[in-house]
Amino acid sequence: MTQSSKALLDNNRIAIGIDIGGTKVSAARVIAAPTHPGQNAADCVQGFIKQPTPTNPEDFLATLTQMIQALSTLEGGAMEVVAVGIATAGIVDPVAGSILGSTGNIPFLRQISQLKTLLESKVSLPVTVENDANAAAYGEYKQGAGRGVSDLLMITLGTGVGGGIILNSQLVHGGHCAAAEVGHIAVSMSRERLCTCGKWGCWEAYASGTGLALTAQSLLRATPNATASRVMMGQNNILEVNTHQVIEAAEEGDPLALKILSVWHEHIATGLGSLINVLDPGVIVIGGGMAPFVNLERLTQLTNERAMLPPVDLRLAQLGNHAGLVGAAHLALEAAVVASRV
Amino acid sequence: MTQSSKALLDNNRIAIGIDIGGTKVSAARVIAAPTHPGQNAADCVQGFIKQPTPTNPEDFLATLTQMIQALSTLEGGAMEVVAVGIATAGIVDPVAGSILGSTGNIPFLRQISQLKTLLESKVSLPVTVENDANAAAYGEYKQGAGRGVSDLLMITLGTGVGGGIILNSQLVHGGHCAAAEVGHIAVSMSRERLCTCGKWGCWEAYASGTGLALTAQSLLRATPNATASRVMMGQNNILEVNTHQVIEAAEEGDPLALKILSVWHEHIATGLGSLINVLDPGVIVIGGGMAPFVNLERLTQLTNERAMLPPVDLRLAQLGNHAGLVGAAHLALEAAVVASRV
Repeated sequence: MTQSSKALLDNNRIAIGIDIGGTKVSAARVIAAPTHPGQNAADCVQGFIKQPTPTNPEDFLATLTQMIQALSTLEGGAMEVVAVGIATAGIVDPVAGSILGSTGNIPFLRQISQLKTLLESKVSLPVTVENDANAAAYGEYKQGAGRGVSDLLMITLGTGVGGGIILNSQLVHGGHCAAAEVGHIAVSMSRERLCTCGKWGCWEAYASGTGLALTAQSLLRATPNATASRVMMGQNNILEVNTHQVIEAAEEGDPLALKILSVWHEHIATGLGSLINVLDPGVIVIGGGMAPFVNLERLTQLTNERAMLPPVDLRLAQLGNHAGLVGAAHLALEAAVVASRV
Repeated sequence: MTQSSKALLDNNRIAIGIDIGGTKVSAARVIAAPTHPGQNAADCVQGFIKQPTPTNPEDFLATLTQMIQALSTLEGGAMEVVAVGIATAGIVDPVAGSILGSTGNIPFLRQISQLKTLLESKVSLPVTVENDANAAAYGEYKQGAGRGVSDLLMITLGTGVGGGIILNSQLVHGGHCAAAEVGHIAVSMSRERLCTCGKWGCWEAYASGTGLALTAQSLLRATPNATASRVMMGQNNILEVNTHQVIEAAEEGDPLALKILSVWHEHIATGLGSLINVLDPGVIVIGGGMAPFVNLERLTQLTNERAMLPPVDLRLAQLGNHAGLVGAAHLALEAAVVASRV
């Protein structure tokens, strides 16, 4: 290790992590110092700030530049910022730091696909860009639920199902930087549920929050006098039942709601079992907005029934909404260390 | 690179590859020299020998030792053998060179699980051990259909469905050395087909030769006057229809047989699409006893319909039954180069 790379790794050098979402951009200084057992997200994230996502490229770059400048000169921040890591939606080429496409609800990102180059010209710090689900997995791997593990799969259960894969301590990107689209493995060939991606039977259409609502609607259709069910909350239209209604009714102990949640757990386990058989990760970290409704013990049991090689090690994510920016900051710091060795 | 590692890589150093199957052990000298465009399996494999798999540990080790000695001193073999690579059924820890379990139809392998150590004490050459499906993938990657590709998935369609995964030019082993059990991703939640692994709905139960026969039986049951079908070949029992009958009838142009093969292609594509969405391999190599019955053009089309990021690059395997021993030999030679650097 050279003198300069050693210096970068000491506790006085930190990176800024930025997470670009469809509605909000969040950023913070991330301390990548050696972890300690009692550490949590609050310990490694400093000066967290959040702004609405701008709606055009010029405002977007200006906002990012301002955030970086504010965090670089944060009052009371004794540590030197040496790099910037960006987590963003879309398919990202992490080597070029460019956005290759499919940017979901931030269409103008296509116009500034060379994000690394554009931003580096404004902030004179090295910039690293990574897909947000990959960055979140990397964050949990470095400072969250997956610390100390070399093979890890992170699953994000939300409106959809996302994921990130770490094998041999490295993010898996694949041949076209499009790996880890784990929500789109087919768990059914019956053409009952059409996924948002346009294909039938994707795991996401069952294991996401949206999938839970579809399962509720399906079970309600098979229930006599369904509109009287607690799950319906006085509504008449089965097709309008949503996730929140199911969760609320289940919390009140409603048997149908509990059954719906049980089937949802089976659906999650089906995909997890498949992914375990392909990747054999030492640990699976479950995050996302639906994670609080997962019964980890029950899900572990069901997943063990599906996987070839039990026991599996399922854990809830620890970094919450900070995972993406923490992971992006770590990737940026590591890239800076590698660059300093060249 | 040190002088000794450079010497190991020159064209005069070769490894012996051995493939341990349930009924046969095959072995050969493998020339790992730089490939040329017109190269095929015959070019890199020398002195191929084959013997029935012995039925006890003592005879087994004696057979392997004899094979290695015979190939080391092969008449006319001017090149020096510097390492031995073994491809075997079962879950293998490639670092320890040990067999961890699940050895299928060679039960006594459990008694000689420390295969690397045992064999090295007999042949005074460094020995490397790898799972046979992984080794086959590595063989196709080094000298077969996947040359020059850094992210590759190999699928073996036979009685079952096996696979090997190479990402960033490295075999994926997973946290418990049990990765790439690709035949056991769930493609159905309907509990129609029980897999040999004891779970419902595995891809293998649809995409294997066995799966093809089950599809035939299923379609025959829905066919009026099924016993008159060309697929039945004069039999009366639908449940006895096998793969060969379907293939033969399809070759004669029988419409039902062609329909069965078409559904089988859809089943294969369903799993391939899922694996592409998880791994994003640059290339997928299809091998195994059922591979000759795959219509690559049709399968590519169907897989593109399932995958998030077309176009996919499907190729037929090139090394046939030699893939495992070729891959094992390459792994052995590379391990010897690394060891010489230490």
